[in-house]
Amino acid sequence: MSVLIVGSTALDSIKTPKAENPKLLGGSASHAAVAASFFAPVKLVGVVGEDFPKQYIQLYRKHRIDIEGLQIKPGKTFHWSGEYEVNMDNRRTLLTELGVFETFTPHLPDTHKQAKFVLLANIAPSLQAHVLDQMQRPKFVIADTMDLWLNIALKDLLALIKRVDAFVLNESEAHQLTEKNNMLHAARAIHKLGPKFVIIKKGHNGAFMSGPRGLFVCPAYPLEDVVDPTGAGDSFVGGIMGYLATRSGSVEGNLRRAMVCGSVVASFCCEGFGLMRTTKVTRSQIDKRVAELAKLVRF
Amino acid sequence: MSVLIVGSTALDSIKTPKAENPKLLGGSASHAAVAASFFAPVKLVGVVGEDFPKQYIQLYRKHRIDIEGLQIKPGKTFHWSGEYEVNMDNRRTLLTELGVFETFTPHLPDTHKQAKFVLLANIAPSLQAHVLDQMQRPKFVIADTMDLWLNIALKDLLALIKRVDAFVLNESEAHQLTEKNNMLHAARAIHKLGPKFVIIKKGHNGAFMSGPRGLFVCPAYPLEDVVDPTGAGDSFVGGIMGYLATRSGSVEGNLRRAMVCGSVVASFCCEGFGLMRTTKVTRSQIDKRVAELAKLVRF
Repeated sequence: MSVLIVGSTALDSIKTPKAENPKLLGGSASHAAVAASFFAPVKLVGVVGEDFPKQYIQLYRKHRIDIEGLQIKPGKTFHWSGEYEVNMDNRRTLLTELGVFETFTPHLPDTHKQAKFVLLANIAPSLQAHVLDQMQRPKFVIADTMDLWLNIALKDLLALIKRVDAFVLNESEAHQLTEKNNMLHAARAIHKLGPKFVIIKKGHNGAFMSGPRGLFVCPAYPLEDVVDPTGAGDSFVGGIMGYLATRSGSVEGNLRRAMVCGSVVASFCCEGFGLMRTTKVTRSQIDKRVAELAKLVRF
Repeated sequence: MSVLIVGSTALDSIKTPKAENPKLLGGSASHAAVAASFFAPVKLVGVVGEDFPKQYIQLYRKHRIDIEGLQIKPGKTFHWSGEYEVNMDNRRTLLTELGVFETFTPHLPDTHKQAKFVLLANIAPSLQAHVLDQMQRPKFVIADTMDLWLNIALKDLLALIKRVDAFVLNESEAHQLTEKNNMLHAARAIHKLGPKFVIIKKGHNGAFMSGPRGLFVCPAYPLEDVVDPTGAGDSFVGGIMGYLATRSGSVEGNLRRAMVCGSVVASFCCEGFGLMRTTKVTRSQIDKRVAELAKLVRF
């Protein structure tokens, strides 16, 4: 089955201690869509300006991403610029130019409204909700977020969380949202806000899932060289959703392996600037790392 | 087979946001010895003053810990006092009174010199080396350490590392020792200093092992309530060594499960002040959590 992904489609200018790369293909939906495309057909919903490079459209097409839902509007594409510190854990935003993203309203083509697997990648929660309003009977909805929305759109976010099956956020966001330091307590508090599944991302320490059948500790693939972590979280959720959409049986039964697949795609994402490494990966390389991770945690 | 454990034997006064407990049984050797005792007979080597409470001697005995190598000297027992912040990750030392520990030289009784499994728990590296000098043909030697020795006794520590099979340290110490941010690079740099096995502790994110047959990602048991993390690292290495001493076959073949056992004992340690919780645990409770961890990482 195909996956519907809505989120940001952007140009990212990324600076690390080792290099600087202007106007790479970025945005939560771009990363998530490419990640999901290794597993399932993807329908992307987003907006870009008239300046959006044709080569990036080609890149989506190369991954057989359906871009019927990608609006091309007069004006400039959303442009984000950020800089990482030496340890690659801390980053600061240098520039945010919203461009056509400022007035973005996601409109779903009719063919998209019946999608069963819906990934609301990181974007304003009111827009995520607007997508859900247009859906008919999705089977599984995941929403990702970021600290910005906790700070400026908490009410919208809380309204959205109620409506999703799985909610994804990172450790510090979980603490911020729930005011709980303990991860089990934080997960429980988030379950009370609605979602059956809570997934907490912990960067190079992997991720953690809480669901009706208990907890899952998902490993991260140990990397020799982190070139650029931008989009790793988006790749993680994209990989999860892509894998889930291809499996029969209950979502819960498949979610653990889906998370490992997402974790592996995220590991590839970190090995290159923007989508440079991810777009060169093959499914068999992903499966190989999934098998390696299985060995890594075996005891 | 029995395990020889040398390290500090102390009185710990511990303050957390929720409570304050004076003069608990503490020290790296105490925590490690109790942890190891769930799996194998333990011989403890350390020093205490004449003020050392008899009930703590009884506690060692209750765990069938051989204290022939525990010196009782005129003067005061090593006393450490520390305070934890709300998140329980950061602690500061309020007081360190070395007492009889200041002039401690570990002398091994003859019966101890032939021990096959030797745990050099956290203590000055010159003392750890002095223990090794007295050993005859140990089969497996693990050394633990702390940032203090990196800061004030680096030369001694580097000399010691050469002589041990496995070296254990935490993430920030690994970064400090090797000047590498990446954990794989740090582990490789430490292998070059001598040890075949490098174990990097990551607190509630588990631990990581690098050895000749590759890497192991060891999970931490998710805890509802961290009461006091003091001694968790010591319990971890103690549990590892205790488990290894009871297994036939190659150490490497047993090390993964040994780390999980250590991780589980450390989890119990965190659930009470000092050794209060650990000393009430049973082997079957440990085995139960080991089985739960196996389920937690399965995918």
